[in-house]
Amino acid sequence: MFRQTLPASIVFACLFFAPVGHGVIAEEQPLSGFSAQSSETERQWEEKLRAIPSPENLRAYMQRLSARPHHVGSPYDQDNAEWILGKFKEFGLDAHIEQFAVLFPTPKQRLVELVDGGLKFTAKLEEPAVPEDPTSHQQSEQLPTYNAYSIDGDVTAPLVYVNYGVPEDYEQLERMGVSVKGKIVIARYYHSWRGIKPKVAAEHGAVGCLIFSDPHEDGFFQGDTFPGGPYRPPDGVQRGSVEDMPLYPGDPLTPGVGATKDAKRLRVEEAPVITKIPVLPISYADAQPLLSALTGRVAPADWRGGLGIAYHVGPGPAKVHLRVTSNWEPLKTLYDVVGKIPGSTFPDEWVIRGNHHDAWVNGAEDPVAGQIALLEEARALGELVKAGWKPKRTIIYCAWDGEEPGLLGSTEWAEEHYEELRAHAVAYINSDSNGRGYFNVEGSHTLEKFSNDVARDITDPETKLSVWTRARLRDISNARTAEQREEIRKRADLRIPALGSGSDYTTFLQHDGVASLNFGFGGEDGGGIYHSIYDDFYWFTHFSDTDFVYGRALAQAGSTAVMRLADADLLPFEFGDFADTVQMYVKELKALAQKSQDDIRERNREIEEGVFQATNDPKRPLVPPAVEAVPPHLNFAPLENAVDALNRSAAEYRKAVEQVNAKGAARSASFAEVNKLLMASERKLTNKEGLPTRPWFKHQLYAPGFYTGYAVKTVPAVREAIELKQWKQADEAIAVVAGVLEQEAALISSAARKLAP
Amino acid sequence: MFRQTLPASIVFACLFFAPVGHGVIAEEQPLSGFSAQSSETERQWEEKLRAIPSPENLRAYMQRLSARPHHVGSPYDQDNAEWILGKFKEFGLDAHIEQFAVLFPTPKQRLVELVDGGLKFTAKLEEPAVPEDPTSHQQSEQLPTYNAYSIDGDVTAPLVYVNYGVPEDYEQLERMGVSVKGKIVIARYYHSWRGIKPKVAAEHGAVGCLIFSDPHEDGFFQGDTFPGGPYRPPDGVQRGSVEDMPLYPGDPLTPGVGATKDAKRLRVEEAPVITKIPVLPISYADAQPLLSALTGRVAPADWRGGLGIAYHVGPGPAKVHLRVTSNWEPLKTLYDVVGKIPGSTFPDEWVIRGNHHDAWVNGAEDPVAGQIALLEEARALGELVKAGWKPKRTIIYCAWDGEEPGLLGSTEWAEEHYEELRAHAVAYINSDSNGRGYFNVEGSHTLEKFSNDVARDITDPETKLSVWTRARLRDISNARTAEQREEIRKRADLRIPALGSGSDYTTFLQHDGVASLNFGFGGEDGGGIYHSIYDDFYWFTHFSDTDFVYGRALAQAGSTAVMRLADADLLPFEFGDFADTVQMYVKELKALAQKSQDDIRERNREIEEGVFQATNDPKRPLVPPAVEAVPPHLNFAPLENAVDALNRSAAEYRKAVEQVNAKGAARSASFAEVNKLLMASERKLTNKEGLPTRPWFKHQLYAPGFYTGYAVKTVPAVREAIELKQWKQADEAIAVVAGVLEQEAALISSAARKLAP
Repeated sequence: MFRQTLPASIVFACLFFAPVGHGVIAEEQPLSGFSAQSSETERQWEEKLRAIPSPENLRAYMQRLSARPHHVGSPYDQDNAEWILGKFKEFGLDAHIEQFAVLFPTPKQRLVELVDGGLKFTAKLEEPAVPEDPTSHQQSEQLPTYNAYSIDGDVTAPLVYVNYGVPEDYEQLERMGVSVKGKIVIARYYHSWRGIKPKVAAEHGAVGCLIFSDPHEDGFFQGDTFPGGPYRPPDGVQRGSVEDMPLYPGDPLTPGVGATKDAKRLRVEEAPVITKIPVLPISYADAQPLLSALTGRVAPADWRGGLGIAYHVGPGPAKVHLRVTSNWEPLKTLYDVVGKIPGSTFPDEWVIRGNHHDAWVNGAEDPVAGQIALLEEARALGELVKAGWKPKRTIIYCAWDGEEPGLLGSTEWAEEHYEELRAHAVAYINSDSNGRGYFNVEGSHTLEKFSNDVARDITDPETKLSVWTRARLRDISNARTAEQREEIRKRADLRIPALGSGSDYTTFLQHDGVASLNFGFGGEDGGGIYHSIYDDFYWFTHFSDTDFVYGRALAQAGSTAVMRLADADLLPFEFGDFADTVQMYVKELKALAQKSQDDIRERNREIEEGVFQATNDPKRPLVPPAVEAVPPHLNFAPLENAVDALNRSAAEYRKAVEQVNAKGAARSASFAEVNKLLMASERKLTNKEGLPTRPWFKHQLYAPGFYTGYAVKTVPAVREAIELKQWKQADEAIAVVAGVLEQEAALISSAARKLAP
Repeated sequence: MFRQTLPASIVFACLFFAPVGHGVIAEEQPLSGFSAQSSETERQWEEKLRAIPSPENLRAYMQRLSARPHHVGSPYDQDNAEWILGKFKEFGLDAHIEQFAVLFPTPKQRLVELVDGGLKFTAKLEEPAVPEDPTSHQQSEQLPTYNAYSIDGDVTAPLVYVNYGVPEDYEQLERMGVSVKGKIVIARYYHSWRGIKPKVAAEHGAVGCLIFSDPHEDGFFQGDTFPGGPYRPPDGVQRGSVEDMPLYPGDPLTPGVGATKDAKRLRVEEAPVITKIPVLPISYADAQPLLSALTGRVAPADWRGGLGIAYHVGPGPAKVHLRVTSNWEPLKTLYDVVGKIPGSTFPDEWVIRGNHHDAWVNGAEDPVAGQIALLEEARALGELVKAGWKPKRTIIYCAWDGEEPGLLGSTEWAEEHYEELRAHAVAYINSDSNGRGYFNVEGSHTLEKFSNDVARDITDPETKLSVWTRARLRDISNARTAEQREEIRKRADLRIPALGSGSDYTTFLQHDGVASLNFGFGGEDGGGIYHSIYDDFYWFTHFSDTDFVYGRALAQAGSTAVMRLADADLLPFEFGDFADTVQMYVKELKALAQKSQDDIRERNREIEEGVFQATNDPKRPLVPPAVEAVPPHLNFAPLENAVDALNRSAAEYRKAVEQVNAKGAARSASFAEVNKLLMASERKLTNKEGLPTRPWFKHQLYAPGFYTGYAVKTVPAVREAIELKQWKQADEAIAVVAGVLEQEAALISSAARKLAP
């Protein structure tokens, strides 16, 4: 998993949000996409299904899978894959391992030292074993702390503290008159995906990059540290990939195609996703002497972290010597485990479920807590098949390898099977790690109502409420305004956030155009073991879902979604929530453009008034901002017309469904054809050109931000153009996206007409 | 000074705010309250006046006054008073020292130790000398670190961390199921005046109270610590009074009357303003082992400070032994230095200017930086008298003693001279410490326009803008919304905040009903030496107004205000800004009552919906809130009618002034009578019953909050009743305040009629 679950105290409500709607779906109504009769049958099978997953099994699976380090290329990675294969087969799935050959550099040399500053310090770069934690002692198998896909380098330069190292931080540095040109930057983790930090640093001329876990976000500020508590200890380090995945994920050498043995490959030097400068992650114990050696301006208030020191920006005076080199050869083998249950009626319609099995070290939480739920789902579905259940559609369970370095296993598989997936995929359901707390769903808004319906049928182990009800009440509790609460209370469904990146849904959704959902529980327990040697069975069974009841709930949710999609007469895509969401995005974009105008106009006025001269402290002068041209008005009409078309077509489709439901009979006649259209509905949101600056990303509604990495940018071509003040490109992108949405509306209308001519 | 100037990064814009108005007053117009001719004469004298203050003198005065510790009862306190007396006389003032005899306890025993927890720790309770700082070595004369007016006590009990120790914190503790009954609490400084912390702790049953300076607000989190920077070093301690001044300030034994030798006195045991439990301030170096010894729940995110530890709430397990005893006898002598320049035309109209001279230790910033400006003002005015200037009114310059323990010198003097002040006082202008940056004014809104006019005539040393323009541009820069900026840009005058408490204006304004202003510069430099041995000449000349140009600006502002008030034909009180401000307060009160209804209604609804059960983490359960009756609607009509009356009378008065200005001649006929009414206008805002729960406080618009201490509560009887959910009392208070405001409106109308019959 790429994205660390933030401690409960930091996380802002995600999952399920919510506005304007109707009532609450009564339990007695037929399931969406099922007739009264088929719904009853489905409910019976689902109840059997949800009774099967067992916490004891989950615990045993975790103990086995996390018993040794199992990163890509390690013996236990392959061993785990073969064990999962055996399990899949034992459960009755038609399973095999699919192999790919990928670039995966591992550390050769790592050095961080202070030089030239009168101070002597060499960073430890090691995570010590903890006596009571048995697997923390497996030093010989552990990958050292590093950032995969850092370029090799050996640099010595003064240090500059750049806060989170995101573009806004460099704007502030510029105001402070501090340049990172020729410097080594030190950035703290968070507020962007880690790979953004060296990318932006290099764009500003830095020659090296250190990334540290600040105790404010990830250490004692959050609570007691491991082993006394769940939080990151002083020497804990967050490993992780810094491949430029917002450009393209997967094997750096084979963009867009499966990394099969004979695939055409880039040379390493040609791969644009490898960092431009060397980068290394460090612990806060290692960061403290480096940050303490900085002088210069005291860091702005919101740049200061939790270390017991005054944070300074620098540059220098102390210089840092950073050396990072990797073993780039040979290519490593990925072991994707794929198990199928063939469909009885529509074998060419695939419902896909995945979770990765590789870890940075032992990975009990990430990814094993998710992988064990997936395994238990496979067992449960296998049992029901043995008991006579026949899914209409083909079900494919996948245990991906190589997610940690760059979504390698899922990406290479989904690139290799691109044409098949475009033709056959109904949906992809992902998970990746799991914890205690609330049910979090993100994904395609054509499946928003579907995912709400699934959540209504899963029971929260702690409160015995449905996980849907619990999430809804949590959203009410977290809402910041009366308007937000009002929306949650009125809307039939909880809003689901869109998917950015950070796990294996990326290629399915954003490259292949497969409607995708990501499931997981969390939010009650904190943690600070992400991508460290302490993410292991000992930690998980002391500080997370210790009795595996949330593992069971995840297995129930995942398998229910899979079974329902596999069995539905009419695929449960829905377009009312979808149109409502797109309408919200368009409003946001208009507000964003307006805000850009307002902000620039106001700043220009303040420059004229002399605000900046008047408030500039001569002892700490800032570079005054320059007058800027007020942005032009953009032509949002095409998008607004497209939203109207979407709303109209969604209403047509809803009406058609109601007519079919009313008639009862003669339902199945046109369903096969309609289902083909529904399967294609997410594909229609992609275009073959992809996003203007990164053609691998085909989806026109969802992409990870080019400068955020994890966090989604919805309607990315338009939104990022506005953010980057590229007004011409924004206007062009509006037209392109509007065209895509008009085609989507046409497809939905066509499905409505086919359904109820 | 009671109130520490927060570092620039924490301070929220205070000073001069601003809404809806007219234009900007042109320099050429006559000064308000002056005819064209008298205005020209006044301007000439003022220009001479502002040319006199000299940074060299200011520096020399500071070196002298801060050369040794000079707290109440110390030899150097008396020595300074006598030196100031000599200076006043040398400058030509008719000066004398007025003595009072007051209760001022000094430390006898101080002990804080961990017991019973397996850990051994005894707090140091000492501030070490710093080699390069000469006065930090004067140990034998320094008052030890303590909180004056703590009751004697010797208690041993488990410790509980209570965040800032304000009422909301105890509400959170209750939700957490933590009681402080029988416990010792440890609270951090800030977010209330310090005396609130032991008061609220005792109300909740605590038996002892420690107050520490957390490095987040007051230490390395802000920047480099002394002597490397201006911020509080690990062993630095904030001394300070914990007398319950929101009940009454001044000598605890003589409430309401001057503490003359023969005054009738309470016994110490009878004095209600002495704390109910022992209390001691400690450094963050001393606090860290205590806080580290706490277990129990991890403190809520916004309770966590800057120490490099996980903050826990407790209680315990470690117990603390706290012993505090004081030398309560004998009474100490106060030396108030009072110097007069008699008025030539209206000797019975007094313009009073004050700043205290006592300090906790050497007190270079607090109070000497303000005291030296006052001295230089006295010299400047004295020189002009020698040059032929004859103020119409009597000018009284006061150097107060005993401000630090409880506004003793100013309170006893203003109580002793109560009847004279009610009869003769025009206005009181206070200062208390000074620094580098923006001009801050707070005070009576009848003088809002006047203080704006003064600020327009003072030049900022750094930007060469007027201090008014600089403050206005800073306010625009700090405004959080477009509406706030709009108001600042449109309103003729900058809003001035109301006075709460924290310095010597308190008794003048809130007990005697004398219109008051408080002047000072600051906001650019940080500091962490407040009430410590490091607040000295070395610190000030390294980290604050190092070249004393802001000391000169303060002397210019203070003396300009004094001269203009002393010379005006018609006293420059104005009621448009005043009525506008009262109207704003009434709107705030209505919104506050509405919010209380809305919040309770919403919480009740969430309780019914089950929000609290759904979001209660079973591993860290919170006590669910109870359903509460929705507050009744209050009758705000009397206040709204009173505001209308104020607006009408303010318009009448403005019109009358315009008529007089138009006529030019025959001006002075009625001025004497009108001036009497204007002088009485602030008195009319008081009533003899005072506030319902604290009769010493007579002013019906301004008081320090009973549970905030420094921060003002405007319309306190109404606002605090609403905050405490005392609806009946709120309705009663509305009627009382409305009556007072109606009388004020009548007085203003009467002044208008007298002025232009």
